[in-house]
Amino acid sequence: MTKEQALQTNFDVDYVVVYRFAKTDKSAAVNKFEQLVEALASVGLQTEVRNGENDSVLIFTRVASDEHLFGEVYRSRVRDWIHGVRVAAPPKETREALEAEPLYEAERLRIIYQLITNPASEGGAGITPKEGEWESVESIFALHDHAYNKDWIKKWGSQYFLQAEDLDDIRNRLGEKIAFYFAFTQSYFTFLFFPAAFGAAAWFLLGHFSPIYGIVSSVWCTVFTEYWKHQEADLGIRWGVRGVSRIETNRKDFKHEKEITDPVTGEKVRIFSGSKRLQRQLLVLPFAIAASTMLGALIATCFCIEVFISEVYGGPLKSILVFLPTGILTIFMPILTGILTNFATQLTHYENYETHASYETALTQKIFVLNFITSYLPIFLTAFVYVPFGNLIVPHLDIFSLTVRPFAEDEDQLKAPQEGFTINPDRLRKQVIYFTVTAQVVNLGMELIVPYLKRRGLSKYKQYQSDRAAKNGGTPPYEDANDPPEDAAFLQRVRQEAELEVYDVTSDLREMVLQFGYLSLFSVVWPLTAVSFIINDWIELRADAIKICVEMQRPTPWRADTIGPWLDSLSFLTWLGSLTTAALTYMFSNDGLGPDGHPSNITGWALLLSVFFSEHLFFLFRWGIRIAISKLDSPGLQKEKRDRYLVRKQYFEENLSLLEKIPRMADAGGDITRESLEEDARQSTLRASTAESRFWSRQKGWKETVTVGKSLIEKSSNATSPELKKEL
Amino acid sequence: MTKEQALQTNFDVDYVVVYRFAKTDKSAAVNKFEQLVEALASVGLQTEVRNGENDSVLIFTRVASDEHLFGEVYRSRVRDWIHGVRVAAPPKETREALEAEPLYEAERLRIIYQLITNPASEGGAGITPKEGEWESVESIFALHDHAYNKDWIKKWGSQYFLQAEDLDDIRNRLGEKIAFYFAFTQSYFTFLFFPAAFGAAAWFLLGHFSPIYGIVSSVWCTVFTEYWKHQEADLGIRWGVRGVSRIETNRKDFKHEKEITDPVTGEKVRIFSGSKRLQRQLLVLPFAIAASTMLGALIATCFCIEVFISEVYGGPLKSILVFLPTGILTIFMPILTGILTNFATQLTHYENYETHASYETALTQKIFVLNFITSYLPIFLTAFVYVPFGNLIVPHLDIFSLTVRPFAEDEDQLKAPQEGFTINPDRLRKQVIYFTVTAQVVNLGMELIVPYLKRRGLSKYKQYQSDRAAKNGGTPPYEDANDPPEDAAFLQRVRQEAELEVYDVTSDLREMVLQFGYLSLFSVVWPLTAVSFIINDWIELRADAIKICVEMQRPTPWRADTIGPWLDSLSFLTWLGSLTTAALTYMFSNDGLGPDGHPSNITGWALLLSVFFSEHLFFLFRWGIRIAISKLDSPGLQKEKRDRYLVRKQYFEENLSLLEKIPRMADAGGDITRESLEEDARQSTLRASTAESRFWSRQKGWKETVTVGKSLIEKSSNATSPELKKEL
Repeated sequence: MTKEQALQTNFDVDYVVVYRFAKTDKSAAVNKFEQLVEALASVGLQTEVRNGENDSVLIFTRVASDEHLFGEVYRSRVRDWIHGVRVAAPPKETREALEAEPLYEAERLRIIYQLITNPASEGGAGITPKEGEWESVESIFALHDHAYNKDWIKKWGSQYFLQAEDLDDIRNRLGEKIAFYFAFTQSYFTFLFFPAAFGAAAWFLLGHFSPIYGIVSSVWCTVFTEYWKHQEADLGIRWGVRGVSRIETNRKDFKHEKEITDPVTGEKVRIFSGSKRLQRQLLVLPFAIAASTMLGALIATCFCIEVFISEVYGGPLKSILVFLPTGILTIFMPILTGILTNFATQLTHYENYETHASYETALTQKIFVLNFITSYLPIFLTAFVYVPFGNLIVPHLDIFSLTVRPFAEDEDQLKAPQEGFTINPDRLRKQVIYFTVTAQVVNLGMELIVPYLKRRGLSKYKQYQSDRAAKNGGTPPYEDANDPPEDAAFLQRVRQEAELEVYDVTSDLREMVLQFGYLSLFSVVWPLTAVSFIINDWIELRADAIKICVEMQRPTPWRADTIGPWLDSLSFLTWLGSLTTAALTYMFSNDGLGPDGHPSNITGWALLLSVFFSEHLFFLFRWGIRIAISKLDSPGLQKEKRDRYLVRKQYFEENLSLLEKIPRMADAGGDITRESLEEDARQSTLRASTAESRFWSRQKGWKETVTVGKSLIEKSSNATSPELKKEL
Repeated sequence: MTKEQALQTNFDVDYVVVYRFAKTDKSAAVNKFEQLVEALASVGLQTEVRNGENDSVLIFTRVASDEHLFGEVYRSRVRDWIHGVRVAAPPKETREALEAEPLYEAERLRIIYQLITNPASEGGAGITPKEGEWESVESIFALHDHAYNKDWIKKWGSQYFLQAEDLDDIRNRLGEKIAFYFAFTQSYFTFLFFPAAFGAAAWFLLGHFSPIYGIVSSVWCTVFTEYWKHQEADLGIRWGVRGVSRIETNRKDFKHEKEITDPVTGEKVRIFSGSKRLQRQLLVLPFAIAASTMLGALIATCFCIEVFISEVYGGPLKSILVFLPTGILTIFMPILTGILTNFATQLTHYENYETHASYETALTQKIFVLNFITSYLPIFLTAFVYVPFGNLIVPHLDIFSLTVRPFAEDEDQLKAPQEGFTINPDRLRKQVIYFTVTAQVVNLGMELIVPYLKRRGLSKYKQYQSDRAAKNGGTPPYEDANDPPEDAAFLQRVRQEAELEVYDVTSDLREMVLQFGYLSLFSVVWPLTAVSFIINDWIELRADAIKICVEMQRPTPWRADTIGPWLDSLSFLTWLGSLTTAALTYMFSNDGLGPDGHPSNITGWALLLSVFFSEHLFFLFRWGIRIAISKLDSPGLQKEKRDRYLVRKQYFEENLSLLEKIPRMADAGGDITRESLEEDARQSTLRASTAESRFWSRQKGWKETVTVGKSLIEKSSNATSPELKKEL
């Protein structure tokens, strides 16, 4: 079997379980392994074991027969229905249910994954990789569908826009969560065309800091954010996942204080006191402050040094020394953020959430704060500290002279000019351009190239190692030595995939949201921002596709009906944009020289007023947009409407047929004849006559009511009319 | 039958239909009447006709048998279920359904009302009072349950707080919509205790315009608003109506442009183009502007005159003349608002909404704007025009001298002092007190006494009229002349109820919301505001109860799961409060004398900053509160949880029993024996062996996987470990 063929088939393997036993001693490892395999078998998975790379074995699993899936499928569908994800309840006979709507690939994989990882109480095997007793289970991953991946990348490479079908494809293969990321990026990309075009025009015609561009861009940001919410709902329905975020999945490593039986359901529930959690959550404040100060300090220092060198320092090597602060940043920033991110994770873990959703939200918020500082603070410093207060600060920057003292020839080169210093309006633009072009490109590069090199290096190292091993006459470390030849290539490939990293969609989402931030916050400084982004994102979309196919293990398909907490970040940035845009346009009118051509003319109340005004304009406008968008119809909403209608119709028809039998009142009661009257009399004497019965028996049937009514009408209109006339 | 007994029984009457034929000529009236009665009968209503008051007949109706309700009940319940109001679908056999959960009184009445008014297509009789072909049907109303009413008023009169049961009672009798009004007022009343207590304390200790009180009151307003939302949801579930607002009921007098068949459902739907409606909706802007200017002008003028007289005019009769503007207001304001409200209704009607909900929302918003101006503008004028700019304006008020010229003795009395004029800081407080005490009391009086007098006058007039009639020897206009004696008293009473007005709950709601507005916007001026309100509202609650029982026809019970658009008004007022409170506290610190004891020291940026700051503090706090409240558990939510759990449980149990039959993998596959191996070989030769089949057949059953795995583990850990060691 050649390498080519190996890529064509997956041997019906559903999931590969990597079991690593390097740390544990042999006998223990063996026992654990036995438990593992038995657990897998107990939920109806067929198993095959093969050698893995150093000190690991690969357990190949596939569902023995669909029957074994039924339980899980049914559970998940009933849960969906209860939470309103699906309109009608699934038929009680699961086989029918499955025939009615067969599983799509992602759903199937998701359900099998749950079958493996869910606790036994929910009918799963309870195998949780890298957690608790299953420490030694390194990972559980499905195999890439290389044929599909190839087509996917080819297709995307050749088309400018992604169609709804492309997104459906992703959803069917990789699940809704990842599909939502691509959907978001795609619609963001499409929306970018307008600001790109308008921005270019503004750049030519209106110049920088034009209020018109500011307004337009804020409007655009608002429209986009609100429209995306609408689209999210629409896609949610299209993919039949609307409301899944309401279905809460418990975290495995949630530590409960005590276990009580729920008064409502009588189920055992694990409790962790909310007050305690609140206390822990409050730790986020000191954390945020500490993080801000640390990062802020680092950035501010470098900023000052840079200002000092570029605007005060007059000595030699200036052109080189200018890059000193950048150097410092590039070295220390990643380290610092690394530490802080790690700490944030720890903290979130310590906050001990029951559900995945709440955990992710909490973590995302922290991460967002960090990213916010690192991404935007430098520009904020320039815009709102350097420019207005430059004249006050710069003279005191001599303290940073020590950074360059060695290079200076005499003291004067280190002295700040005591007067006549003017701030450099170009600095802000330069910075924005750096962040919106250079940084983006670098970022993209890092994402694609670094992991590639890493993988290359690794394989090189292995090669070298095996050669040495061969030289030393030891058995080669390659585990595939004793593979059956026909599987060799396949196993080879699986081992490679086992080595790959796990794809985390949120990091990609974060990237996009932060990018959006530059647009909403600062694009008024440099209207071409959107142009740069549109190019960047076209590539980004493809790059991510490649990343998923090549750099990463096949992601476990999870469901989602939203991009989650990032949506809040999006709204937040849009709102903040309405403030910064106004402030920037006011402060930097006249091309960065402040109101009347001089920054010192910036007056507090005018600045505040413009900000205040623009913010409330924004609120008003957003409100309007929300209403407008809520009126929009969409395929998704129509689908929902249809489903509802059909269910209702069915119910009505079944029931109303029963009601036909009821006798219509219209038929009852005939004309008054002597007989009928006598009949009535007889009746009334028969039954014990109460006031009620007498009241209701005066007119028999509606026809009689009519006759009586007629006479009344005649009489009364004779009786009273003249009276009334007299009154007038 | 005495009057007492007449109040005890309703003769099983469900609804009384008042048919008036004064305008139409006799024969037409008779035909219409016949149609009417037949229509009623056709939906299973038994009818009795009696004389009504001048030129009207009363048609008493009751449901002939429950069967005739079933259709409507079932329809309504299925619709509920489809819209997620009820968790499980109603059993298909309606009789069971009704036995499972019998109708409560309000529900029964609602369904009968729908039976009468719904279009034939939905199984109703399509009788719409005062609309279209049923012009002559004056009203359709249920009879008061006087026994219950008496207990109700007695009970409430004697207890300080309303219990949940009291509200449930109302809900069962008068429906959720009215119950929600009482629930809201009640929880508002309860919440008032805190600001009342704190306000009193602040009044003694902190004086007026204390920032501390300002903050506390804003916080309180926010908490109340957010908490009410929570409680609303809770009550919604408690009363089983959560989500009914999503069920849209079409308006009878919606004019459709064209009728198309819905592509989705294939139903006929009546369409009115949204763009056209938008154009019409835009008319609200000129309307709002016009209304504001007219009302504003009126108020401003009176305001100026008042200022002129009280602070400029020095002539005689000053003490009396001061009331001149108030007089003008009390005369013209009601007229003007009357006209405008009328116009607003016309406009909303013209906007032509499909559903009742959207119509009500649109109308409410307009009404709110009007009320906002009339209620709050005077205070705004004093606070933000008179005080800061008083010195500039007052000198120019001479123009108003003509209003009092006749009384002045010499010109000097009409001249404004050119200098040395100081604004009167007490004016603002006086005004707030007027609006929060005097106005409230007057209001309450109007609500109770005026209608009472009206009713009295009417009956007196009738008495007088009949006497004259008797004198003139004509037949007495009393229609009950030919009533059967045993029904006389009852009919008498029904005729009185037929004369009563229809209760409109929104007007009462509006009152409460506007009252809340004073608290959130201006209470910092006079901290005792809440004290006055708490007394007022205790009475208000009882007064409304009496009003419903005595002044009004029994309201048709409608469902609701919210106080509707007023909720937005509430949030709006809370938000605006965060602005005004900050502004007022800043401007009027030093007891109305401005920052440093003089209003002229008010600086723009400081004012803006304080407002800006407080607003964002408010946003932040509201966000926090929302999160906190979303964490609250409540009986309602528990109920919902329980229902869901039970349904799910039932489904699982029914289904999972089926799954038990499936053979457990754990049993399959035994140890490897010569036989088994041969068996495998034979098998593999039998079936066409593919790469897949061979791959999966290498290990038969999980036990074998274990054995193979063991050997692999042993081998591999021997093979590679030394290698790795060498590396280190």
